[in-house]
Amino acid sequence: MELNHIEHIGIAVKNLDESIKYYENVLGLKCYAIEEVKDQKVKTAFFQVGQTKIELLESTDPEGPISKFIEKKGEGIHHIAFAVKNLSEALKEVETKGIQLIDKQPKKGAEGLNIAFLHPKSTGGVLTELCEKNSESK
Amino acid sequence: MELNHIEHIGIAVKNLDESIKYYENVLGLKCYAIEEVKDQKVKTAFFQVGQTKIELLESTDPEGPISKFIEKKGEGIHHIAFAVKNLSEALKEVETKGIQLIDKQPKKGAEGLNIAFLHPKSTGGVLTELCEKNSESK
Repeated sequence: MELNHIEHIGIAVKNLDESIKYYENVLGLKCYAIEEVKDQKVKTAFFQVGQTKIELLESTDPEGPISKFIEKKGEGIHHIAFAVKNLSEALKEVETKGIQLIDKQPKKGAEGLNIAFLHPKSTGGVLTELCEKNSESK
Repeated sequence: MELNHIEHIGIAVKNLDESIKYYENVLGLKCYAIEEVKDQKVKTAFFQVGQTKIELLESTDPEGPISKFIEKKGEGIHHIAFAVKNLSEALKEVETKGIQLIDKQPKKGAEGLNIAFLHPKSTGGVLTELCEKNSESK
């Protein structure tokens, strides 16, 4: 598997509007998109920093994964997402190497990407997402 | 302030050698440097992914910040570091905007960078590092 670059860093926030203010007014980034991902029970806001995006995640459901993360660990960095060329092959490869998959098959993420998560139990506590652009998929 | 790119993602690990195996054998990255940063009480291992580095951090002291982080939150993503052109100016700018600084002055980090941390209390729970290359410093 070849990791091309870090596609995005996912950050769990309580209030998207408040957090957008910090990223724009303090760090000088520009929010270029807000998108709801119903499947993940989140509303997301995106900022570009070089090759990588910052993806802020606000829960839309008290039972959703971001609500539970914040309850347990507080606001903060939630996951890291690597860009790969062929997601299905990458998933097969890491599974044969003993990695526990949260998603055995690619699913749709924000920005039309195909995504899948690896379980943090087998990645040193780091919730890890692999993603591919649709145009690059087979 | 202009953030150029994400310089690195810092990840707290219990055992550097075990974690290097995961990043090399599963994710296909190559550890290109191991360095001890005595000031931070850590031993670090570096991997390049596009513009950004993964910096694994193993504590060298049970009272060090990485030991305490792992005790409290477990292994996982510890901080995000943004590259800036002028670190001293960036620190002044964010301080005037109400951000609490852990380091009021730049200090030496790994790889010869000048670095400073912003307090997660004022950055939405995200321990945030700003860093500049020595060659770019004033």
